[in-house]
Amino acid sequence: MKVAVIGASGYTGVELLRIVHRHPRLELAAATSEQRAGLVIGESFPALREIVDLKFEALDAADLATRVDAAFVCLPHSTAAPAVAALRAGGVTVIDISADFRLRDRAVYETWYGPHKAPEIFGQGVYGLPEFYAEALVGAKLVAAPGCYPTSALLPMLPFLRAGVVETDPIIIDAKSGASGAGRTVAEGYLLTELDDNFYAYKVAAHRHIPEIEQEASLVAGEPVRVTFVPHLLPTIRGIGTSVYLRLKAPLTTAEAREILLDAYGAAPFVRVLPEGETPKLAHVRGSNFCDVGVVVDEHAGTLIGLAAIDNLVKGAVGQGVQCLNLSQGWGETEGLEEAPFSP
Amino acid sequence: MKVAVIGASGYTGVELLRIVHRHPRLELAAATSEQRAGLVIGESFPALREIVDLKFEALDAADLATRVDAAFVCLPHSTAAPAVAALRAGGVTVIDISADFRLRDRAVYETWYGPHKAPEIFGQGVYGLPEFYAEALVGAKLVAAPGCYPTSALLPMLPFLRAGVVETDPIIIDAKSGASGAGRTVAEGYLLTELDDNFYAYKVAAHRHIPEIEQEASLVAGEPVRVTFVPHLLPTIRGIGTSVYLRLKAPLTTAEAREILLDAYGAAPFVRVLPEGETPKLAHVRGSNFCDVGVVVDEHAGTLIGLAAIDNLVKGAVGQGVQCLNLSQGWGETEGLEEAPFSP
Amino acid sequence: MKVAVIGASGYTGVELLRIVHRHPRLELAAATSEQRAGLVIGESFPALREIVDLKFEALDAADLATRVDAAFVCLPHSTAAPAVAALRAGGVTVIDISADFRLRDRAVYETWYGPHKAPEIFGQGVYGLPEFYAEALVGAKLVAAPGCYPTSALLPMLPFLRAGVVETDPIIIDAKSGASGAGRTVAEGYLLTELDDNFYAYKVAAHRHIPEIEQEASLVAGEPVRVTFVPHLLPTIRGIGTSVYLRLKAPLTTAEAREILLDAYGAAPFVRVLPEGETPKLAHVRGSNFCDVGVVVDEHAGTLIGLAAIDNLVKGAVGQGVQCLNLSQGWGETEGLEEAPFSP
Amino acid sequence: MKVAVIGASGYTGVELLRIVHRHPRLELAAATSEQRAGLVIGESFPALREIVDLKFEALDAADLATRVDAAFVCLPHSTAAPAVAALRAGGVTVIDISADFRLRDRAVYETWYGPHKAPEIFGQGVYGLPEFYAEALVGAKLVAAPGCYPTSALLPMLPFLRAGVVETDPIIIDAKSGASGAGRTVAEGYLLTELDDNFYAYKVAAHRHIPEIEQEASLVAGEPVRVTFVPHLLPTIRGIGTSVYLRLKAPLTTAEAREILLDAYGAAPFVRVLPEGETPKLAHVRGSNFCDVGVVVDEHAGTLIGLAAIDNLVKGAVGQGVQCLNLSQGWGETEGLEEAPFSP
Repeated sequence: MKVAVIGASGYTGVELLRIVHRHPRLELAAATSEQRAGLVIGESFPALREIVDLKFEALDAADLATRVDAAFVCLPHSTAAPAVAALRAGGVTVIDISADFRLRDRAVYETWYGPHKAPEIFGQGVYGLPEFYAEALVGAKLVAAPGCYPTSALLPMLPFLRAGVVETDPIIIDAKSGASGAGRTVAEGYLLTELDDNFYAYKVAAHRHIPEIEQEASLVAGEPVRVTFVPHLLPTIRGIGTSVYLRLKAPLTTAEAREILLDAYGAAPFVRVLPEGETPKLAHVRGSNFCDVGVVVDEHAGTLIGLAAIDNLVKGAVGQGVQCLNLSQGWGETEGLEEAPFSP
Repeated sequence: MKVAVIGASGYTGVELLRIVHRHPRLELAAATSEQRAGLVIGESFPALREIVDLKFEALDAADLATRVDAAFVCLPHSTAAPAVAALRAGGVTVIDISADFRLRDRAVYETWYGPHKAPEIFGQGVYGLPEFYAEALVGAKLVAAPGCYPTSALLPMLPFLRAGVVETDPIIIDAKSGASGAGRTVAEGYLLTELDDNFYAYKVAAHRHIPEIEQEASLVAGEPVRVTFVPHLLPTIRGIGTSVYLRLKAPLTTAEAREILLDAYGAAPFVRVLPEGETPKLAHVRGSNFCDVGVVVDEHAGTLIGLAAIDNLVKGAVGQGVQCLNLSQGWGETEGLEEAPFSP
Repeated sequence: MKVAVIGASGYTGVELLRIVHRHPRLELAAATSEQRAGLVIGESFPALREIVDLKFEALDAADLATRVDAAFVCLPHSTAAPAVAALRAGGVTVIDISADFRLRDRAVYETWYGPHKAPEIFGQGVYGLPEFYAEALVGAKLVAAPGCYPTSALLPMLPFLRAGVVETDPIIIDAKSGASGAGRTVAEGYLLTELDDNFYAYKVAAHRHIPEIEQEASLVAGEPVRVTFVPHLLPTIRGIGTSVYLRLKAPLTTAEAREILLDAYGAAPFVRVLPEGETPKLAHVRGSNFCDVGVVVDEHAGTLIGLAAIDNLVKGAVGQGVQCLNLSQGWGETEGLEEAPFSP
Repeated sequence: MKVAVIGASGYTGVELLRIVHRHPRLELAAATSEQRAGLVIGESFPALREIVDLKFEALDAADLATRVDAAFVCLPHSTAAPAVAALRAGGVTVIDISADFRLRDRAVYETWYGPHKAPEIFGQGVYGLPEFYAEALVGAKLVAAPGCYPTSALLPMLPFLRAGVVETDPIIIDAKSGASGAGRTVAEGYLLTELDDNFYAYKVAAHRHIPEIEQEASLVAGEPVRVTFVPHLLPTIRGIGTSVYLRLKAPLTTAEAREILLDAYGAAPFVRVLPEGETPKLAHVRGSNFCDVGVVVDEHAGTLIGLAAIDNLVKGAVGQGVQCLNLSQGWGETEGLEEAPFSP
C-alpha cells in the first residue's frame, strides 16, 4: 500500500518513516513538510541518510490523493483538520495523529483547541485505541489516533472503570513525559542546558488532554468521570510513565486487580500486564509499540494504583497509528511493529 | 564548634563535608568510615582533593566525645541508633540523618525497620523540620532530621491540613527522586546503563517513609491521616519533585490556597512560595537548601495540588541537618547554607 | 538457520537477541547464561517479555552442536576461547564477539590477555571487518568480530593508510565510548550517580585494543604503524565517537581526502561517508549497524582528521557479527540489519 | 567593592551572580541585560529568587562608572569591546570575559572575529591566566579572561613547552565541552531531544579559540606553535575535558613528566596535579574553580598526553575572572572561590 506521511519532519513524522521503512506492506510514496520541501529526507535528517531518498514536498492533498491509498497526518492540531478533510475528499484513508478528531463533542473541542477547521467531517473519526475499539477500526477510513498522555492514562485505568470497582470522581493522574512530547519545539525551556538534570510539573490541571481522557473514561464507566491530570517533564528524549490513582469502592487485592487487567489485555498484542512486584519502566518499552501496565492495591488507604509506560512517539503516536491501519485493512495487528524494545 | 561526620563516605556524608567546609562556625574535627578508615578524604574522593585533608577514621564514640561538640550521623537506619546513643552518652549533640529517631511510636518503627538498637533513648529526638519545629529545636541535643521524601511531601501539604481545608483520608503523594536517594548502592539497577533514559515507580505504597509522613501529617491535622505514597526513580543524580493531591472540603481558589502557603512560610528562609503560574523545578533548587513550593487548585475536580522541589542531599538530608544545628545553637538559621542553587 | 547465543545475558547478548528476532533467516534455538540458566529470557529481561520465550541454559557445547548451525559467542575474552573451540569441534560456525581470535600473533595476545585457552585453533579466525575482509569472510567458519574501539578507529583511518597519504608513526586516536562498552559491570564507577554529567579518559595509552588496531593498520599500510590510543567514557548508554589524527605526507584538500573515503566505501552498505561540513554523530547511528565517517584536512597544521561514529553494541559488536554471518553464508549483507537508526 | 555584571542574563553572567553572592569583598551594584531590563533578577531566573533582588538594567556605561569600581563584561565578542572601552573611560576596572582583548595581534583578531570595535584600547588587556600571568595581573585595570577551551588546553600543555621537552608543530588538542559552552543559544541543535545521548565533533580545525591557544603556547615555547584543535560537544550541561597530544623530543617517563607539572603548579591554588593513575574527571571539578591536570607518557609511541578537566563556566570563564580580580586587587587569590566541587 502506498502511503504518505503528512508533516514528516516532526519527531512523530520521522519515527513514522522508520516504521514505514520496516513495514512489509507499506511503501512510502510521499512525505510532506512545508519548511523542508525540496530537500532530500536523508540529507535533512542524517539518521535516515541512504535509507529514505525521497524528497520532502509541500502538501497538495488533491495530488496526493492520486498517488497514495493512505496517509498519516502528523500535523499540529488545527492545521491537521483541513488536510484531513482534503485527503478524505480524495478518497484517501487517513490516520490522524493530531487531536482534531478525537473528541466527540465539538463544543468541548473548541473550548480547548479553538474553532474546528473542518467541521463538516467532525465526528467521523474512529478513536484509535485498538484495545477498546478493535471492531470499529475494521474498515475505518478516518482514524483519530489517541494522544500520548491519554494512551498512557487510559490503558491502566479503563479496565477498572469497566469492572465497576473504583470511584469515578475524581481520578488522579500523575504523568511524566520525555521532551520529545513537545515536538521539535525550539524554545529556551527545551534546551539541554535547561532540561537535563531537571524535572517539573507543567500545565497543572490545565492540559488539553484532559477532555480526551474524561471522554473515553466516561464512555467506559457509563457515567461522568472527572480527572485531575498533572503532566510533568522528564529529562529524557522519549517515554511516558503514568501513575493513576483510583479510589476503591470495596476492598480488592492486588492479585484480583491484576486479574482484571489480564481479562482486558490477555489477547492484546501490545499491552503487557506485568507480574506482581514489577513496575512498568520506560527502558523496557523504548522504541516499541508496547504499553506495559501494572497495578498495586494500597489496602491501607483504599487506593488502586494503575501504572503504565509507553514510548510516546510509538504507542503514544505513530506506532499506534500503524496498529490502527493494520486493523483497518485486516492485516496482522503487529505487522511492522515487531521490533523489540531498544534496551539498554 | 568542632564537629564529626559519622558515615562520611556516603553521598550525604560527602555533601555534608562540602557544607562544613563553607560553614563559618563549624570545624571538621573527625570523619568516620569503616571501609575507608586510614584513607585521606581528599584522595578517596578526588572532588575534595586539597580541600579536606583529614583521614577517615573508624568510629569510636567515646574517643570522639572528647574531641567534638556535635556530630552528624549519616549512617543507615539501625546502624545509626547505637552510634547516636554512644555519642549522646558522651555528651555530644547529635544531628541524626537516619530514620532511627523520627518516629514517635516504637511499634511503628519496628514494623518498618526492625528492632530498634537503642531503645533507651527512643523518643528523645526532636523532629528536624524547622518550619514546624523551630521552638523545639532551640537547645535540642538530639535532632532527627526528616527523610528526603517526607520533607518534600510535608512542606507542600501541612499548611493545608493545619488550615483544615482538605480531607485527610486518603492523600495521594506521587514523588520522584534522583538516584542519589539510594545512596552509593552498587547494584545493577543503579548503573547508568540501566537508569539513564529510564523512569519508573518502585516500592509502590510500600516505602518506609509512609509512617513518617502519616505521623507528621496527623499531628498537624489533629486527626489520623492516611496517605497513598508512590515513589519513582528519575534519571538524575539529585533532586526530588513531589506532587501531592488533596481533596478540598469546600471550594477554594488557587490564590486563596497560595495565601495559606504564604502564611505558613513567609518567614521561612528556605521555603520559597512560587508565584501563580510557576511550578517548582529541580534545577532551581539544585545544590541548595531551598524547598520551592507551589499550589494549584483544580476547581473542576475539587482537588488541591501541592508541588515541591528539593535537593534530596541538602534540604532532604544534611542541609536540613545543618539548619537544625544552627537553630539548636541559636546561630543564624541560614549560616553555611547560603550558597545559591547550582543552575544551570 | 538455527543459531545459539552464547553469553546471552550481557548487553551484546541482549542486543543480539533483538537482531535475531528480526532477522529473516535466523531462528534462536538456544541462549546460554551460567548465572541465569533456567530463567525465561523475557522474564529475566522484561524488555523482551512476550518476545523471547526461550529459557537461558548453561553452556553445553557438545549438546548445542547437535541443535544449531551457528553460534555467536558473546563471552568475555579468555572465557570465550574454549567455548569457541568446543563449538568448532562440533562443526558449528562461530562468530566470536570476544577478543580471543582477533590477534594474529599469539605472543602479542598473551601479553595483553594472558594465556590463550584454545591455542590449537589460534590463528583460524577471519577478522570480521567486512569492509576490508569481505572475500575472506565468504564461507568462513570462525569469524573474529572486531572490537568496538578498533571498528571506530580503523574505518576512518585505513583508507588513508592504504592510499599512502599519511605518516604511520605515530597516529593519535582519541575515542569516546558510552557506558555499555563496559558491559553489565556492577561497579561503583558505573553508577548513574558517578557517570552522569561526567566525562574522563581512562586506560590512557594502555587499553587492550591497541595491538588490534596496530595489527590491522600495519597490514593495510604495509609497514609498522604505532598508535597512541586514549579512550574516554561518555555519560551515554551507547555509542562511540572517535577522532583520528594523521600527519599528512603532502598537502591534500578535504575534498581529496573525502574522495579517498568514497573510493573505499562507495559500495559498503554500512559505512556512510558524510558530506563536507557534516560530522558523525552518535544520535545518527544509534541502534543501527552504520558507521558514519567524515574527514577534515587541517591544512594549517598538516593534519588529516578522520572522524567516525558507531553504536558500540551494533556495528561495534553483534551487528557487525551478523553482517559477517550474512557474508559467510552468501546472504544479503544487510539482512536483519536494516532497522533505521533510533533517532531522536 | 561595588561591582557590575554586564550581560548578566547569559549562563556566565548568572554563574557570576552566584559567585558574587558568596564573595566576601564584592557587592553587586548593577547587572545589565538589554532584553530583561526592568525585570527582577530573582524572578527572571527563579534559581536566584530571594537571593538577588536587584533589577536588570540596560547598559549605561557612564552612569555605571559613577556607581561601581569594577565590572565583569559577559557580553559576546564584538559587543563587548565598546562596552569595555566605555567602562574603562569611566575609570572602571574591567574583567572582560569575552574574546575581544585576548589576542595580541589585531590582524589575527580581525581574521577570526571581524573588525575590532574598540581599536583604541586593543592590546591593553592582561591575559588572565593567573598561573602564568600572576605578576602582570597585580594592579591590572583591564583583564582579558581566557576562553574556556584555551584554559583547558593551555594548563596541561604550557609546562611541557616551557620545559622544552616536546615538539611544537603540530600539537593535537582534542577537547570536549558541555552544552553551556554555547551559552543560552536557542537553536534546534541544542535541544535536549537533539543533544542528549549524543556526541560529535564540530568546527573541526576551525574554531576561534585556535589563535588564542597558538598565541599563548608560542609565547611560552619561545617559537611558533601550531595546533590542530578539534572541539566536540558532550551531552552534559557543564564541563570541558581536554586531551592534548605532544610529541616527545626525547624519552621521558610519566613520573618525570608529572614532576614538570608539579613544578609549574605546586603553588597554584586552583590547579590540582593528579597522582599517577588518576585522570581528570568533569565530576570532580563541577561548580568549582579547579582545573585538574594529569599526564601520561606513551613510551611506546613517543607521545606525551596532557589531560585536563574544568568547569567551563567557572575556571573556564567567570571563576577565573574573579581569580584575576582578586589578584589585581591584592586580595587572597581564592576569595569567593572556595566552594568545594559539586559532586555527585
